[in-house]
Amino acid sequence: MTDPLRSPLLTDLYQLTMLQTYLERGMEQTAVFEFFVRHLPPERGFLLAAGLEQALSFLEGLRFDERELEWIQRSGRFAGDFADRLAELRFDGDVYALPEGTAFFADEPLLQVVAPLPVAQLVESRLINILHFQTLVASKAARCRLAAPDKLLVDFGMRRAHGAEAALFAARAGYLAGLDGTATVLANPCYGIPVFGTMAHSFILAHDSETAAFESFARSHPDNTVLLIDTWDTEAAARKVVKLAKRLQGAGILVKAVRLDSGDLALHARRVREILDEGGLDDTGIFCSGNLDEYRLAELLASGAPVDGFGVGTLLDTSADVPYLDCAYKLVEYDGRPVRKHSEGKATWPGRKQIRRRYDGQRRWVGDRLTLAEEKGAGRGLLVPVMRAGKRLKKAIEPLDTIRTRVREELASLPPAALRIAHPEAPQVKVSRKLQRLARELDRKDGNP
Amino acid sequence: MTDPLRSPLLTDLYQLTMLQTYLERGMEQTAVFEFFVRHLPPERGFLLAAGLEQALSFLEGLRFDERELEWIQRSGRFAGDFADRLAELRFDGDVYALPEGTAFFADEPLLQVVAPLPVAQLVESRLINILHFQTLVASKAARCRLAAPDKLLVDFGMRRAHGAEAALFAARAGYLAGLDGTATVLANPCYGIPVFGTMAHSFILAHDSETAAFESFARSHPDNTVLLIDTWDTEAAARKVVKLAKRLQGAGILVKAVRLDSGDLALHARRVREILDEGGLDDTGIFCSGNLDEYRLAELLASGAPVDGFGVGTLLDTSADVPYLDCAYKLVEYDGRPVRKHSEGKATWPGRKQIRRRYDGQRRWVGDRLTLAEEKGAGRGLLVPVMRAGKRLKKAIEPLDTIRTRVREELASLPPAALRIAHPEAPQVKVSRKLQRLARELDRKDGNP
Repeated sequence: MTDPLRSPLLTDLYQLTMLQTYLERGMEQTAVFEFFVRHLPPERGFLLAAGLEQALSFLEGLRFDERELEWIQRSGRFAGDFADRLAELRFDGDVYALPEGTAFFADEPLLQVVAPLPVAQLVESRLINILHFQTLVASKAARCRLAAPDKLLVDFGMRRAHGAEAALFAARAGYLAGLDGTATVLANPCYGIPVFGTMAHSFILAHDSETAAFESFARSHPDNTVLLIDTWDTEAAARKVVKLAKRLQGAGILVKAVRLDSGDLALHARRVREILDEGGLDDTGIFCSGNLDEYRLAELLASGAPVDGFGVGTLLDTSADVPYLDCAYKLVEYDGRPVRKHSEGKATWPGRKQIRRRYDGQRRWVGDRLTLAEEKGAGRGLLVPVMRAGKRLKKAIEPLDTIRTRVREELASLPPAALRIAHPEAPQVKVSRKLQRLARELDRKDGNP
Repeated sequence: MTDPLRSPLLTDLYQLTMLQTYLERGMEQTAVFEFFVRHLPPERGFLLAAGLEQALSFLEGLRFDERELEWIQRSGRFAGDFADRLAELRFDGDVYALPEGTAFFADEPLLQVVAPLPVAQLVESRLINILHFQTLVASKAARCRLAAPDKLLVDFGMRRAHGAEAALFAARAGYLAGLDGTATVLANPCYGIPVFGTMAHSFILAHDSETAAFESFARSHPDNTVLLIDTWDTEAAARKVVKLAKRLQGAGILVKAVRLDSGDLALHARRVREILDEGGLDDTGIFCSGNLDEYRLAELLASGAPVDGFGVGTLLDTSADVPYLDCAYKLVEYDGRPVRKHSEGKATWPGRKQIRRRYDGQRRWVGDRLTLAEEKGAGRGLLVPVMRAGKRLKKAIEPLDTIRTRVREELASLPPAALRIAHPEAPQVKVSRKLQRLARELDRKDGNP
């Protein structure tokens, strides 16, 4: 089978039917498409751009292989020399984008593709598929980091992420947005992300007793002794850990932490902290998991629960409170002519654009203005070139650490209302007069095109 | 890079840390793990088992390749001959499962793995990752089918599915649960699923006028002329279609359908139907898309909207109302000894189990009973062998059509309250006395293990 992660057939059929018409009719002039989010959901005061690395890899590697061309021919849907034309097809356009980790708001393009119409259109579905999901998870992970600024935060979501790629993308997006790492092993060889992990309940159950399980684990993982203590009675287990710790001390093994995964985490954490402290295990940390997200983290820490770290899993990797964004990849210019769709509730800003962002002297965010690309004006232009004629620019290859630093700076710069966990308010983006005028002109013209 | 869709490193780190301890301590007796859903969400009256095909492929293909073993050695986390042991590791166990498309409820295992503890544990994360998501989408797709029994239903969700594999899995799960096909091209070469698709708004915008775009598409796709009519003014566009249709008739081209993608779909569908009928286009269908799911389908059809087919996209592929299930893969027996985790709110039924389902004379569902595997009793045992000693059984290779037939039978058999779109009620599963007694015994014993 064709590799689904890179196949150009991982697309919507209409991309191919449109492509055929474009080629047949010689509609191969330059198109400009922009990818943006129409509205921020009420649960988000900002979004973080993510996934550019994989989007550019996809564009660089775009080609139809033998088996894919064979499918095109066999399908009986496409006439004439379509397969031959596809065999030659490469992405040879220019791309502008927000660097990963950049905060953005409604209507602001995070990606701009400038390429001949057929190929610029073809790549739509997979570009959205890559950028939408990583942006979704990075934005939620940043909120988890805001809720627990000084705690160890680890992605635990692989098992309930939506498939293999979602698990990997979530590990990456979570890390770039500020988590400390992931439990997903493959994220280390793939992206160099730190991995964390200890034991499951089955490990306890497979032993003859809880204490036997703890000791067995400690002796085979002396440097990473984190013990799961909620299989039966959490506080009783904490007392067993205290007893065992004395025996392990002789072997030079320290119990690094205990993990709670069920019940009233705040209550258990407090009681377990007391038991550990009374038992002389002041340096043994408490790590919590189990249905956690930014809301629960904020609540637990506000209650004063003595927790040192958290695993955030399913609710992060599925972005459960906001499982999708209202995003679109829209044609804004064709053959030099700006265009505008005007479907009810889904109108788009026409023309090739730029975002101008202004800061005050303390690098606090002051305002964003959506402008036409050629407009000058105050503020830094956020969309930067990342690919020319199908080749990625060197500066568009960024280590995750660079992106993590950018995220920290972005979060430090945004207004407090945007950063709030509950009922955040996303800043309003201004639209330049020229752009508003262009939109009005096109509406008049298209009223009866 | 290692292929993430088959790599055994696509797992949680704790699987490897536990595995090392099991191998070191010779804990390689037979374990029984069961995968089940703890609670059905209030929005679901039933679930459909899905993903077994990919789960079994994963088990059959499980091996560590050179690069993966190298990572294990390089990581510095694992001592001694761990990599050598992993090099030999294969899945050589037995598997029992619900055939795909089988309806099931809370606490009922859909998969049962019987294998030496180390390998039975290792496969947990990816098995959940595969089965959870397909089950999630199949269950929602079945509800879409229930909401619109006689309409064309097509999966449109690829772009906002969570990554590449989610898009493919959603196309498969949607189709096996009763959709007519998908827009995702790759689902055809991968799974033989019918694909559908026509045009995007950009196609209209790239032409000089709406009519020019319609005509251009019709002439290059004379057998599949479905025209998107909401780019500016939906009803005005419908009138253009009527005019154009007369011209196209000369060329023997029929306008198969028009597509609405925004605004008040019920209202537009009614007006467009009138315009088409008055224009003599009685055979031209109306196809709707745009933020649809089972609730919207039910609402639109209840309002009498004259719609012939629907694209269901993002809300299906992300299962947006229920983006995850509370599911678990739990050790229930080790070395002949039944076990039970008793964490608060997460207690599990111990021992190796079977589900007995009873029907009345009209094959209507009467009741399910969760029993120990060895118990006899009324009703068909739903868990059937699908793999022996690591080899898949022939009968466990099912064409999608067989599964689709099973789904239709399942939906016809379930109580109406379970099938309701709004506020469904999931049937209660009975638990055999022997199983209840075993659970009580283990609780007594484990109170102070």
